[in-house]
Amino acid sequence: MNTYWNLFRITTFWESHGVWLWVVIDGLPAGFLVDQENIQNEMNRRKPGQSDITTQRKEDDSFEVISGIYEWKSTGHPITIILKNNDQDSSKYDNIKDILRPNHADMTYNSKYGFRDHRWGGRSSGRETVSRVIAWAIAKQYLKEKLWVDIIGYTKQVWNITWGNVERDYIESNKLRAWDRDLWPSMIEYVEKIARDGNSVWWIIECSIIGAPKNLWEPVFWKIKSRLAGSMLSIWWIQWFEYGVWFWVVGHTGETYNEWFINDKWDIKTKNNKYWWILWWISTWEDIVFRVAVKPTASIYKKQTTVDTDGEQVDFTIEWRHDPCILPRVIPVIESMAAIDILDLYFMNRARE
Amino acid sequence: MNTYWNLFRITTFWESHGVWLWVVIDGLPAGFLVDQENIQNEMNRRKPGQSDITTQRKEDDSFEVISGIYEWKSTGHPITIILKNNDQDSSKYDNIKDILRPNHADMTYNSKYGFRDHRWGGRSSGRETVSRVIAWAIAKQYLKEKLWVDIIGYTKQVWNITWGNVERDYIESNKLRAWDRDLWPSMIEYVEKIARDGNSVWWIIECSIIGAPKNLWEPVFWKIKSRLAGSMLSIWWIQWFEYGVWFWVVGHTGETYNEWFINDKWDIKTKNNKYWWILWWISTWEDIVFRVAVKPTASIYKKQTTVDTDGEQVDFTIEWRHDPCILPRVIPVIESMAAIDILDLYFMNRARE
Amino acid sequence: MNTYWNLFRITTFWESHGVWLWVVIDGLPAGFLVDQENIQNEMNRRKPGQSDITTQRKEDDSFEVISGIYEWKSTGHPITIILKNNDQDSSKYDNIKDILRPNHADMTYNSKYGFRDHRWGGRSSGRETVSRVIAWAIAKQYLKEKLWVDIIGYTKQVWNITWGNVERDYIESNKLRAWDRDLWPSMIEYVEKIARDGNSVWWIIECSIIGAPKNLWEPVFWKIKSRLAGSMLSIWWIQWFEYGVWFWVVGHTGETYNEWFINDKWDIKTKNNKYWWILWWISTWEDIVFRVAVKPTASIYKKQTTVDTDGEQVDFTIEWRHDPCILPRVIPVIESMAAIDILDLYFMNRARE
Amino acid sequence: MNTYWNLFRITTFWESHGVWLWVVIDGLPAGFLVDQENIQNEMNRRKPGQSDITTQRKEDDSFEVISGIYEWKSTGHPITIILKNNDQDSSKYDNIKDILRPNHADMTYNSKYGFRDHRWGGRSSGRETVSRVIAWAIAKQYLKEKLWVDIIGYTKQVWNITWGNVERDYIESNKLRAWDRDLWPSMIEYVEKIARDGNSVWWIIECSIIGAPKNLWEPVFWKIKSRLAGSMLSIWWIQWFEYGVWFWVVGHTGETYNEWFINDKWDIKTKNNKYWWILWWISTWEDIVFRVAVKPTASIYKKQTTVDTDGEQVDFTIEWRHDPCILPRVIPVIESMAAIDILDLYFMNRARE
Repeated sequence: MNTYWNLFRITTFWESHGVWLWVVIDGLPAGFLVDQENIQNEMNRRKPGQSDITTQRKEDDSFEVISGIYEWKSTGHPITIILKNNDQDSSKYDNIKDILRPNHADMTYNSKYGFRDHRWGGRSSGRETVSRVIAWAIAKQYLKEKLWVDIIGYTKQVWNITWGNVERDYIESNKLRAWDRDLWPSMIEYVEKIARDGNSVWWIIECSIIGAPKNLWEPVFWKIKSRLAGSMLSIWWIQWFEYGVWFWVVGHTGETYNEWFINDKWDIKTKNNKYWWILWWISTWEDIVFRVAVKPTASIYKKQTTVDTDGEQVDFTIEWRHDPCILPRVIPVIESMAAIDILDLYFMNRARE
Repeated sequence: MNTYWNLFRITTFWESHGVWLWVVIDGLPAGFLVDQENIQNEMNRRKPGQSDITTQRKEDDSFEVISGIYEWKSTGHPITIILKNNDQDSSKYDNIKDILRPNHADMTYNSKYGFRDHRWGGRSSGRETVSRVIAWAIAKQYLKEKLWVDIIGYTKQVWNITWGNVERDYIESNKLRAWDRDLWPSMIEYVEKIARDGNSVWWIIECSIIGAPKNLWEPVFWKIKSRLAGSMLSIWWIQWFEYGVWFWVVGHTGETYNEWFINDKWDIKTKNNKYWWILWWISTWEDIVFRVAVKPTASIYKKQTTVDTDGEQVDFTIEWRHDPCILPRVIPVIESMAAIDILDLYFMNRARE
Repeated sequence: MNTYWNLFRITTFWESHGVWLWVVIDGLPAGFLVDQENIQNEMNRRKPGQSDITTQRKEDDSFEVISGIYEWKSTGHPITIILKNNDQDSSKYDNIKDILRPNHADMTYNSKYGFRDHRWGGRSSGRETVSRVIAWAIAKQYLKEKLWVDIIGYTKQVWNITWGNVERDYIESNKLRAWDRDLWPSMIEYVEKIARDGNSVWWIIECSIIGAPKNLWEPVFWKIKSRLAGSMLSIWWIQWFEYGVWFWVVGHTGETYNEWFINDKWDIKTKNNKYWWILWWISTWEDIVFRVAVKPTASIYKKQTTVDTDGEQVDFTIEWRHDPCILPRVIPVIESMAAIDILDLYFMNRARE
Repeated sequence: MNTYWNLFRITTFWESHGVWLWVVIDGLPAGFLVDQENIQNEMNRRKPGQSDITTQRKEDDSFEVISGIYEWKSTGHPITIILKNNDQDSSKYDNIKDILRPNHADMTYNSKYGFRDHRWGGRSSGRETVSRVIAWAIAKQYLKEKLWVDIIGYTKQVWNITWGNVERDYIESNKLRAWDRDLWPSMIEYVEKIARDGNSVWWIIECSIIGAPKNLWEPVFWKIKSRLAGSMLSIWWIQWFEYGVWFWVVGHTGETYNEWFINDKWDIKTKNNKYWWILWWISTWEDIVFRVAVKPTASIYKKQTTVDTDGEQVDFTIEWRHDPCILPRVIPVIESMAAIDILDLYFMNRARE
């Protein structure tokens, strides 16, 4: 079903052809002063056209609050926010009406539902994620003001370019949301080459949850790492997830991997938090860090071969605008899912403290 | 909470110190003839002591059906299965009563619950997974007999040893459940060296879902890949998850990654299923393949340093039996979670066909 | 939370001051041809101003489909339907800003949420039920066309006027939706007297589910009678629920109450279905009948005494339009909740047949 | 499914033929000291054979705690409690193997599940409610010690004998759990006459929730009155539910029904709490009162006519022990469901305060 989580939950129900897009956010406590500008800022972070390496398609993402907020204070009821979809000229999609595009949902939609709306891909369009980003904006503000939690995503690797230092202040100032000033030149050079080539590329995003409340967990099936994994993979383009450590450690042994406890006079904590983990999956005050890999966008300018709905082989070349590098735009979506997980877990745990 | 999924769901509620362990399986249709021997077989696949590279601790995993099955036919009501825990001599744990073991839940349990049962780790013990394996046995039998689905896990990589061919018949015949006859000698040599050394090691398990029903999905948040990711990460020792492709493709571009459709006279399908994926996350008849990484067991024979409950630094050396290489035993647990996901999705989709 | 049921579910999130009202209906199978006119008809049945005994307040309940329906066929995704609220002049409510109206939510809203939107009562307004009626229209059409189920509500008792015969054809032709032609004159006479008097009144509505699918039930907590009871009491004005028999039988004994089985050559059935019950709460083909009592509307023209937000005693007289007799308008709301229950149970049971 | 509610939830999975009966209680905060004797007391209140007007069948309801409690303190994990079923001699049921008993589940079980366990009725047996009473004992203790809430049920009406005064101290001292010392003689005279006659009878139980926390509610579908209604009707023998007022008020008008607010210097409250209601369904500190009607037990000693599984008409006379008057035994079951509702709502609301 189209609803996610328990005590802090979102419902999205947009289809790409829709005139209206929206999200329902259920579970925010009453009386919280919602920052309107902050919502717009987060939407802008996800917006297409924010630089020359993302799609130039225009989305006019101004929003309207329809319920749950009264004089900018939350009422304790579901918050509904809508966006008017202004990019509705579907005529440009007429020529793909009967084509089953490579790596798109066309074939499986036809199979499952018996028909499809060829114009934008219906519920399979990535535009759905704007709903999550709106939830993120509100959740982020709540996490910051009430719980002193911050969630920050950044580009960790493109192609084989990685290693470096997280410079939190640098992230929002570069158009890849890269984490390291020194890696930036080679990263952008590579991405621009791919973009010029009409191609697209894999990359890896890392996300830090800083200051998550202590003692968060739900039993075995619903612990933080399983929720985060499920939430991240619910994002269309994400195909793998690493919690704490990453795949470079696959050659490590228990001896190098094990983390020890120390007493730092204030608190018992791990010696290094070297793998940013949660001890036996219950949160401490230490940072939670995870990584996801984002697949190359399916829409590329290269000529491809596929079949049409009659089963005939056809050549296929796209002509519309697309994202050579969706990566900086995915980051707020990743942050949003992490925020929903943390906030829902927080409310779940708080209930029975 | 301690319940997982919707129409096919399991509830586990065992604690390690418990005299009884059990599982409740809710949602199996009435009138299905349950194969008793098959349950025992799957439990044996997870059992400790099955070879010299796993723990020699004895678990007497014989089970008793308490509800939901009448003359071996399912009644349509919850199936409850119990195991008597015969390994209850807790005196051997007395000397760790006040120690916060490295990489164990001791510290966080104390913090969250105010106290802990030092004897086995309470709900944080991996012994909980036996419940999942029982569910797996029944789900597997149902998937096979009613839906012609098979789910097979195998060791794909240890240290840097990988690449090869999946030989399905070979998997159950070797004690690592390795996938490739030729890789076996170097894999087992490495694992035995680690075991002799009192150490433990990372490894990667791959799992194939063969013949999953067509058209499975739930909308955006609950699609197969997000469910599988969450389910896998709900297993204690699993920290990363790859869907379809794996991390070696991180340098690939959209051009190499994109899969094309062909018409093979019978059906429109992908040309290669090269990444074993599900098109836009709705299942076709093609195989679903994913991989997980399993962290080294925390219990190693090396001397380590930690603190006790008073915050004093202490040396720590374990003396009891542990698994140098838990990998062959984790495989049925992985298969079980995949089976629960597929069966629940199947019932969800079937409801509204 | 604001979502109801499992496989066929609705989410409502309207607040009375909202410009837009809407409902999300999740779970309708794809490819169902939705009858637009039928939706309008059901909304008209709930509409104010349909006769001189209901409020003359005008609600312009024309609706717009926003998602889930494409060329009037269901897409398998959430169906969202909105209504524009044209009755937004809130100035007339200014004089009750600081008054805690008798039998309204003013006091408890202030207590729970710290503030309230005085203009219409926020989420506590009965206008929310229009969302349910839209869901009803679609569910009713599906139940009729796919499952041959009909659900019919009617006025069974006002004051002490009851007993008679259900004349299904007569119900929609009289403005009380009364069940019996002969009772009608005394019923309407009584209601009109109450209306003239500025008063309001209790009454009892009966609802028949005709032809509900056989074998519907979910285990103990979620059986039909418990679902119907909960659903009915979720309607603001309903305070009691009777399943099958009604309270006149309270003097009966097991001997008179027990129903016997007969073999009518086609089927084993009950001799009389005299109490319209479901045998041990699993449905047969026999009708399901229940009754609810609807409390008098709180808004009456009589002078009342209450306190204001400062705790000062004030006289209170309402001046706006209200329903002396909400009963004919509540009937589609009751039918809607019964339909949601039956359809959800149907999908739940079908999943595992 | 067999699980009830959200943050405080119970799962039952017993079948009547089972050797073991049990309940899982999930959601009790860690560190609560559970009173063992109190559990036994509540089980005794539900036990058969407690007086000459209930069944003389013996149930040896001693229990064992299996998980979730360690040295009588809750661990924060699911609490599992089992009972050994000692009344397993099923031979006495042999003669009803092929008979479809009047007012029992035999016919519908055969229809739904294709077969039934004739010995006790499987999941349709009222013995399942012992699980709820165990949950009740723990919930009651928590409600009392942590939230100062008390829940008290009592017999309000048998046949036409009612009206009187609630004497809380008198309730547990008489074998009908009647509410009024003066009504008792005529009530017991009537019930004993019915019992001698081999018959059974309807009656009405009232339940008071005293001191429920303020401001409890979940939005529209899940408000207290709808939850209580659903929970009560989930009890096998209950067929109607009245919230606050009862059916005698059906002739009342809005003028008599409306409750006014007063300022009693300490708090704004209702003038009379005359209908024990919750204002617009959000709780205040005032008592919550509801009533349910319990149908006559189906097992009576009268000769009845029914059909067997071949559809042949047969006479039917029961010979085993049954309850002429189940009423005093149902009361703890009613209290248990009310307690689960209140505690779950409390945790839900507390999460987001």
